[in-house]
Amino acid sequence: MSEPSSVELDRIRDRIDEVDQELLTLLRRRLNLVGEVGAIKHKQGLPIYAPAREAAMLMKRRSEAQAMGVPPQLIEDLLRRMMRESYASENDVGFKCINPDVGPVVIVGGNGKLGSLFSQLFRLSGYEVRILDKNDWDRADELLSDAGVVVVTVPINHTAEVIEQLPRLPKECVLLDLTSIKQAPLAAMLANHAGPVVGLHPMFGPDVSSLAKQVVVVCHGRFEEKYQWLLEQIRIWGARLHEASAAEHDQAMQLVQAMRHFTAFVYGSHLRRERADLDQLLQFSSPIYRLELAMVGRLFAQDAKLYGDIIFSQPDTLARARHYMDRYQEALSLLEAGDQEGFEALFDDIADWFGDFATQFRNESGNMLLSANDNRSETG
Amino acid sequence: MSEPSSVELDRIRDRIDEVDQELLTLLRRRLNLVGEVGAIKHKQGLPIYAPAREAAMLMKRRSEAQAMGVPPQLIEDLLRRMMRESYASENDVGFKCINPDVGPVVIVGGNGKLGSLFSQLFRLSGYEVRILDKNDWDRADELLSDAGVVVVTVPINHTAEVIEQLPRLPKECVLLDLTSIKQAPLAAMLANHAGPVVGLHPMFGPDVSSLAKQVVVVCHGRFEEKYQWLLEQIRIWGARLHEASAAEHDQAMQLVQAMRHFTAFVYGSHLRRERADLDQLLQFSSPIYRLELAMVGRLFAQDAKLYGDIIFSQPDTLARARHYMDRYQEALSLLEAGDQEGFEALFDDIADWFGDFATQFRNESGNMLLSANDNRSETG
Repeated sequence: MSEPSSVELDRIRDRIDEVDQELLTLLRRRLNLVGEVGAIKHKQGLPIYAPAREAAMLMKRRSEAQAMGVPPQLIEDLLRRMMRESYASENDVGFKCINPDVGPVVIVGGNGKLGSLFSQLFRLSGYEVRILDKNDWDRADELLSDAGVVVVTVPINHTAEVIEQLPRLPKECVLLDLTSIKQAPLAAMLANHAGPVVGLHPMFGPDVSSLAKQVVVVCHGRFEEKYQWLLEQIRIWGARLHEASAAEHDQAMQLVQAMRHFTAFVYGSHLRRERADLDQLLQFSSPIYRLELAMVGRLFAQDAKLYGDIIFSQPDTLARARHYMDRYQEALSLLEAGDQEGFEALFDDIADWFGDFATQFRNESGNMLLSANDNRSETG
Repeated sequence: MSEPSSVELDRIRDRIDEVDQELLTLLRRRLNLVGEVGAIKHKQGLPIYAPAREAAMLMKRRSEAQAMGVPPQLIEDLLRRMMRESYASENDVGFKCINPDVGPVVIVGGNGKLGSLFSQLFRLSGYEVRILDKNDWDRADELLSDAGVVVVTVPINHTAEVIEQLPRLPKECVLLDLTSIKQAPLAAMLANHAGPVVGLHPMFGPDVSSLAKQVVVVCHGRFEEKYQWLLEQIRIWGARLHEASAAEHDQAMQLVQAMRHFTAFVYGSHLRRERADLDQLLQFSSPIYRLELAMVGRLFAQDAKLYGDIIFSQPDTLARARHYMDRYQEALSLLEAGDQEGFEALFDDIADWFGDFATQFRNESGNMLLSANDNRSETG
């Protein structure tokens, strides 16, 4: 499309460019200052994510914005984006070591993506890190003999077996796993090690640039007091800890993670069989339509085995998947009968059950859709 | 959690606050300049979204950022967020009227959300707008006698019936609808009006603050040349037009819109029957987990009738819904047989079919998840 211009318009656009260049200078200064904060936090062992400071700062800027006629949500969104960068850059200076006297940290499966991330974080915090990967088992005794912490991060289906394979660990050694289910690995760890045991589930992908604001679920195993330092270390990395029983955790994972993956998988299969023209579908892209497609398609950019493990690793998933099918059948019957009234009555019942959460979910997704629209370009 | 502080830390934080206050001043200046741009665009009748100017500007700022050691993606994300505000503020000054000589614009269903949005846009562009809502039918002849444009925006299931109910329109009057299906309404309009006819589908919710970057699908009906001015007017509001046949459009809507709504509906029904504890599920919130829940829950904050209409309005949806069930059954059989290998093989076949789109979807959703994480607070 042509974009007619004029001297007047160009003059103002030049002034906007000047403002944007000043913005760059400000960003550079801010990144420098944030680097200094990181250095001090490192020295003092403070967590990189400071929720109270963050909330107070945002509130203050919002009210200053209001007074200046700047939309408060605008400054909040900009600052939140800038803080993401700050958290990532605070990674570079390293983290305080909470327990410098502990023995080496051995990462079993340390060459996997999540294993590499945790290796890096432990190293950045001054711990000695050793990797025990698939091909290192003949050296397992040697690598583990003086271990202070053993982190098991292997595919779900091998977790129990790998834990059983471990040689006897030093009595004080903390044994933990990072698997996305918790009951079975925790039971295996408790059966195979008499010392401190804890199950962790980092609720994020291994490609995050920082642990700031990310959640780590903690399922206590044995001798909590012996691994408090480790939880504190994870807090310093920026994460928020959420304690839960392994049973609660696994049930929640099944309802959302396993079943959402399973139904997204079926949706992908459906699109293929219906010979959907993906390119054409994207031409019609409204932000939400695009997001719906992305939530299905993203699955298939990842590892079949990862999803196979998540879906097949828990026997209960089958029962859940059958229940879902009953619900599908019920909705389909309404459609077959042309019973729109019945559909809408069921819809309202479900809406009642969701209660205020429905509104909360709509608002949350609404913000995301606005930001998705910001990121569009003519071609995208 | 306590947040220990120190004199040194406080001193640097004060300096960060100063930077952020300077940022506010810059934003105020930028908004003023953008207001001036809006006024000129209004005067000259230029579209508020200028893709080429936007792309060139972002490229320039990115390379300046690089030279200064500021992450290019940071400045791009900030500028995109600032531009959202600019687009919204350009709404305030109004839009150039492309066809000042046309007769009144009559919005049938003008008190609905989408009707209100379009009424506002037409008024901001200097057109005379009349509303013909449910209770105004006794005045229909009078309201429509000299209409230049008639916009039908009523619930899907009433669209055809409302079109048939319209009195004879002036020969030159442009008749259009905004329904989210296109074949049936377009056929009804062509049968009931001998003049110019066009079907539009605005691919966004009625709560957008601006049409900038939003897509409007255009399905041509009759006498294209007579409503070119109207398409140009919609471009000036900031939207991008995408032309398609009504059949292509409807098929795409069914594959994504109707079936995604249908399966999300079933998922909501499933969560209720499994007695999911939503509050607890949110405690485990990883960004993606939360988004998965939000995409289901958001449905139930909306109108049962709206979704009932979308799902029940097209006879083909039933066949699609049965096909989906076949795919579900196929995946369930693999789960019943414990055939993880078969599941992974099918997964890989589907991944092949998605091809490069899978990666594209993963990247897109990845950016959204980063921004969702930015917006977290301790409580959220």
